[in-house]
Amino acid sequence: MKAMIYHGPGRRGWEEIPDPGLVSPGDAIVRVDAVTICGTDLHILKGDVPEVEPGRVLGHEAVGTVMETGPAVGGVRQGDRVLVSCITACGRCRFCRTGMYGQCLGGGGWLLGHRIDGTQAEYVRVPFAATSTHPLPESVSDEAALMLADILPTSYEVGVLNGRVQPGDTVVVVGAGPIGLAAIMTARLFTPGHIVAVDPAAARLEAAKSLGADVLAGSGDDPEAAVAELTGGLGADVAIEAVGIPETFELCARLVRPGGHLANVGVHGAPVTLHLEDLWIRNLTITTGLVDTYSTPALLDMVAAGRLDPAAFVTHRYPLHDMEAAYRTFSDPAGSGALKVVLSRNGRSG
Amino acid sequence: MKAMIYHGPGRRGWEEIPDPGLVSPGDAIVRVDAVTICGTDLHILKGDVPEVEPGRVLGHEAVGTVMETGPAVGGVRQGDRVLVSCITACGRCRFCRTGMYGQCLGGGGWLLGHRIDGTQAEYVRVPFAATSTHPLPESVSDEAALMLADILPTSYEVGVLNGRVQPGDTVVVVGAGPIGLAAIMTARLFTPGHIVAVDPAAARLEAAKSLGADVLAGSGDDPEAAVAELTGGLGADVAIEAVGIPETFELCARLVRPGGHLANVGVHGAPVTLHLEDLWIRNLTITTGLVDTYSTPALLDMVAAGRLDPAAFVTHRYPLHDMEAAYRTFSDPAGSGALKVVLSRNGRSG
Amino acid sequence: MKAMIYHGPGRRGWEEIPDPGLVSPGDAIVRVDAVTICGTDLHILKGDVPEVEPGRVLGHEAVGTVMETGPAVGGVRQGDRVLVSCITACGRCRFCRTGMYGQCLGGGGWLLGHRIDGTQAEYVRVPFAATSTHPLPESVSDEAALMLADILPTSYEVGVLNGRVQPGDTVVVVGAGPIGLAAIMTARLFTPGHIVAVDPAAARLEAAKSLGADVLAGSGDDPEAAVAELTGGLGADVAIEAVGIPETFELCARLVRPGGHLANVGVHGAPVTLHLEDLWIRNLTITTGLVDTYSTPALLDMVAAGRLDPAAFVTHRYPLHDMEAAYRTFSDPAGSGALKVVLSRNGRSG
Amino acid sequence: MKAMIYHGPGRRGWEEIPDPGLVSPGDAIVRVDAVTICGTDLHILKGDVPEVEPGRVLGHEAVGTVMETGPAVGGVRQGDRVLVSCITACGRCRFCRTGMYGQCLGGGGWLLGHRIDGTQAEYVRVPFAATSTHPLPESVSDEAALMLADILPTSYEVGVLNGRVQPGDTVVVVGAGPIGLAAIMTARLFTPGHIVAVDPAAARLEAAKSLGADVLAGSGDDPEAAVAELTGGLGADVAIEAVGIPETFELCARLVRPGGHLANVGVHGAPVTLHLEDLWIRNLTITTGLVDTYSTPALLDMVAAGRLDPAAFVTHRYPLHDMEAAYRTFSDPAGSGALKVVLSRNGRSG
Repeated sequence: MKAMIYHGPGRRGWEEIPDPGLVSPGDAIVRVDAVTICGTDLHILKGDVPEVEPGRVLGHEAVGTVMETGPAVGGVRQGDRVLVSCITACGRCRFCRTGMYGQCLGGGGWLLGHRIDGTQAEYVRVPFAATSTHPLPESVSDEAALMLADILPTSYEVGVLNGRVQPGDTVVVVGAGPIGLAAIMTARLFTPGHIVAVDPAAARLEAAKSLGADVLAGSGDDPEAAVAELTGGLGADVAIEAVGIPETFELCARLVRPGGHLANVGVHGAPVTLHLEDLWIRNLTITTGLVDTYSTPALLDMVAAGRLDPAAFVTHRYPLHDMEAAYRTFSDPAGSGALKVVLSRNGRSG
Repeated sequence: MKAMIYHGPGRRGWEEIPDPGLVSPGDAIVRVDAVTICGTDLHILKGDVPEVEPGRVLGHEAVGTVMETGPAVGGVRQGDRVLVSCITACGRCRFCRTGMYGQCLGGGGWLLGHRIDGTQAEYVRVPFAATSTHPLPESVSDEAALMLADILPTSYEVGVLNGRVQPGDTVVVVGAGPIGLAAIMTARLFTPGHIVAVDPAAARLEAAKSLGADVLAGSGDDPEAAVAELTGGLGADVAIEAVGIPETFELCARLVRPGGHLANVGVHGAPVTLHLEDLWIRNLTITTGLVDTYSTPALLDMVAAGRLDPAAFVTHRYPLHDMEAAYRTFSDPAGSGALKVVLSRNGRSG
Repeated sequence: MKAMIYHGPGRRGWEEIPDPGLVSPGDAIVRVDAVTICGTDLHILKGDVPEVEPGRVLGHEAVGTVMETGPAVGGVRQGDRVLVSCITACGRCRFCRTGMYGQCLGGGGWLLGHRIDGTQAEYVRVPFAATSTHPLPESVSDEAALMLADILPTSYEVGVLNGRVQPGDTVVVVGAGPIGLAAIMTARLFTPGHIVAVDPAAARLEAAKSLGADVLAGSGDDPEAAVAELTGGLGADVAIEAVGIPETFELCARLVRPGGHLANVGVHGAPVTLHLEDLWIRNLTITTGLVDTYSTPALLDMVAAGRLDPAAFVTHRYPLHDMEAAYRTFSDPAGSGALKVVLSRNGRSG
Repeated sequence: MKAMIYHGPGRRGWEEIPDPGLVSPGDAIVRVDAVTICGTDLHILKGDVPEVEPGRVLGHEAVGTVMETGPAVGGVRQGDRVLVSCITACGRCRFCRTGMYGQCLGGGGWLLGHRIDGTQAEYVRVPFAATSTHPLPESVSDEAALMLADILPTSYEVGVLNGRVQPGDTVVVVGAGPIGLAAIMTARLFTPGHIVAVDPAAARLEAAKSLGADVLAGSGDDPEAAVAELTGGLGADVAIEAVGIPETFELCARLVRPGGHLANVGVHGAPVTLHLEDLWIRNLTITTGLVDTYSTPALLDMVAAGRLDPAAFVTHRYPLHDMEAAYRTFSDPAGSGALKVVLSRNGRSG
């Protein structure tokens, strides 16, 4: 089969490799019907994630069809159309038993495209398939479902739920890339009073506005002043960090009111400075997290009920074999305007 | 009357000043029957808290007798024996209505010995007296009650409750001064599996042990190794920072397991480094806070029921007029072994 | 002044009585600018609430202007336009300190039109005015604000928040009178997947639909079948009882899924049968409650931000002196189609 | 092998039947090393649980040794010493993914001794063994572990945690049989201010006292008066129903304060009357539940750490083959004083 292989920093290729086979009794082999590229894949290609070894198939998001299952796979059957989650869960360790699947101690966690071969391929082996895939109702499109493999549960759990967004809150989302936009979309489930989007890119602020942000702070704007004005000088109830650099984290810490929540979603590569000399007294709650995907079933229900339309994030579409073109588009969002690109087995060009 | 006056960094005096009088209709004048000194008073004397202006009476903890009340003071009467809380609460602003009294927007918060004259005096004016004092049952001694003015609710709310200590947890308390020891005492209310106390001073570790810590990490020990051994390498469920310097905060961040809580209680004077490049993925919750004193009534009930004995923190006793001697003792814990010193109107020498 | 007086079961009159005056230092005298009638007032008139003594002025909801305040009233001033809440809170008792104002032990609770004279009058004395009134921003109309005196916080706190409505949930609201409709309006703040409205009156189901209910069960319908179909036979996540009779409570208990919530909002006059022989095993949570009004400030913010439009409940308008006509309209909802009637000092006829 | 067979109401026998074998890939065959009898087994024998068909092996609690595992059983191996939980969990259905194992929709739930053959036998087949057994550390004795198969997690989750017991609370436990006593033992993990035990049997009250109840209400006593005296007339914070009849449930409803919790643990065979005409206004929370066993790992840790000693419930011991004698002893607690009886493969007589 063909797959997108990582060959070390800066090098990748869409190449022929052997088809995957069952290894453990809990495995399933899934034919990839639709797949996307994540900002994290670009991080890997820069060499920022050294656990990823050269030769690895990239990708941790897919919708596909189950081709074969090991003897221990209950609840999922050959022929099922499934969402392949970015998180693989043994389902029985201490953390899995409390819904913290991302921290699985039993051999799961973030495996696909990280510690084992991933989904940017024609077929993928999914370990612990019973607890790591989700059968899809017909009413949910491949594109909508694909957004539930990673970005929607990540933004919802690590941003909105960790941030404890409540009706009427003032919520600031710093960074309006796919993750920040998904945070805006899912924050709206709780009807905040105001959503402030902060991003230097005007196009992304436009996207934020169309998804429900009512205050926009762009390159020349002062987000601290904007939030102060909205809140009588108090600060935001919740700040969601969706970039992953010190400046944006520290901005979030300045934007939050006493007693508020700072929910970090960004993937950081460097330490940040926490101004405890100011913050010790402010009753702040700061959270971090890899997605656990405990919310995926509920998000699927909301998509099926028409309460969420995550396919709105898809800006570009390609046939699966145009993986290289898709990577080029996704790697240049300023030029291409790309949010999420989707590659489909039966795909048309974007 | 006599009072302990702050005269700028490094200078204080027990001096004659005019008695306080009612200023606002919600005020009460309280005769100080017992008072203590807080580590924060020493910070002020070092000049670390610049909002405190020279001429200010120090102290924010007292037990006393109500002498006079303004017309708006309901629920508290002349002659009542009351606990004067370190936090003054208007009782009607947005934050007071949700129990966040420490962040009061209506003119309260931490006032005594900070923005107005405090309790280290013969008399003190207490604003918003109805919501800032607690009538005391006879069964609770002055000394026990005095520990509820600040250190017990601070350690309980900002350490134990923010840290969400649960039965069976492994809890690490870094710093075994009065605040850390009070965190150990109140953490035990939730029957953790293990309490690890970390402090370079052997005497403080002994105190920690007597209060319920079962693992002690002193100057030559490696707390990370100790916690790893207890937890199969996973880390502590809760780490409580009770010192207030970067090293101890950063140690706490290394000691917590994925999904765990870091509750900062220490008063910090400098920024800390938060290693988000490691922690973004670990589902950590970090909390900060000034005490709100919402737990004070429940703590009082527990003392009255004999479930807590906070008088155990009192190592030295003085008559009120020996304030200078008490300060000298409290300022030299290594030499004196002092935890909390109590000064009483009818006091005997310590 | 004129006021609506209760003269015992079945008898009322809009009569001249003396103006109220200040009694306690925390009192305010408020001129009533807008007032409404509650289903509870009809209960009182039937004789169902024996604590209400003949001679009492009815009414516990108003918007008005502060005319005079006692010396202990902070935060509210003469001339302020305020919401008079149905709940009066001392602000300092054990329950007030934890936001349970409805259970106030310090002399508050549900006083107006119940234990003291109420708001269906030209003027009303409001005890503990600082913690029992809410200054109104200009952008919030009298009619919208008036809905926050009782029905919105009641439905939101006792129905939606007690029921722990979550995004994607299936929520059943049994009873589509003003309280049930307000529960539908505020449940939508959490974006449930489905809202099922159950009521025999077709007009009320239409109102429910316009507020966001997507499944309607009327007089000939089987709500259990409807909920089973929506939920794969499992049952609703949340059932909100908004009627107050045994049949509707017991229906709710049959409609809830294992692990679900039954939030009782209805005012009951008779015991109900709880089928614990079926329910002991189903992990059910049942809640009851008088409103505490802790959510009133947040609801006010949401109205001001345009996120809630409670004036939609107002179907009939009268001048204040047409109180009798308003009562007749409100007492005959089947004939008049009335949801909420508003009487205004400067009012036009409805 | 030998097993205790149910032959319809009133009839049972310790008889020879074929050894169990693997049926599904997730099964394990466990040799029973220690087993106990539950009050529920007596209910079954009375005919109260009609789902149990004649011919069924009774028992849902065991400690044993894994003899054989199906190909899908990860994490548990031949030779492992394990706790067999009363709840069997598929680990992947909607409810299992949120820790509600008792409500498993994937073929689990309460199976053993109910819908399939149980543990009162020499061997037992355990479905979904990976998520339904718990490997035991050496430091935990068979007897202590056996109490974690049902009564401790049941009392803790359905009584103490559902009841939200907090430090300083007044907790009433109605019924001081094994379940009520286990509720007292685990309530103490949260250091309540007072624990009131209510039971007509003096011997059970004595046991309650030895486990930490500080107020006892026996046959001639008035528990309402006792609780009123302790709480200034307000009522208990938490009432735990551990009997399962209408009188005790209704007593609990009268004992709880406004805003309090009534946690039902008792297995009820008849409806109860809920006095909503009094309770609608009292902000009560009532919970029911079958145990989910999500707390079993934490309870095991607490036993291993010496924080809980559940072996204290064991009053009688028998060799496994004395099953009939054990049943006679357990069926007559008034005569025998039995709390829990343990039968051991290598057992001595009790």
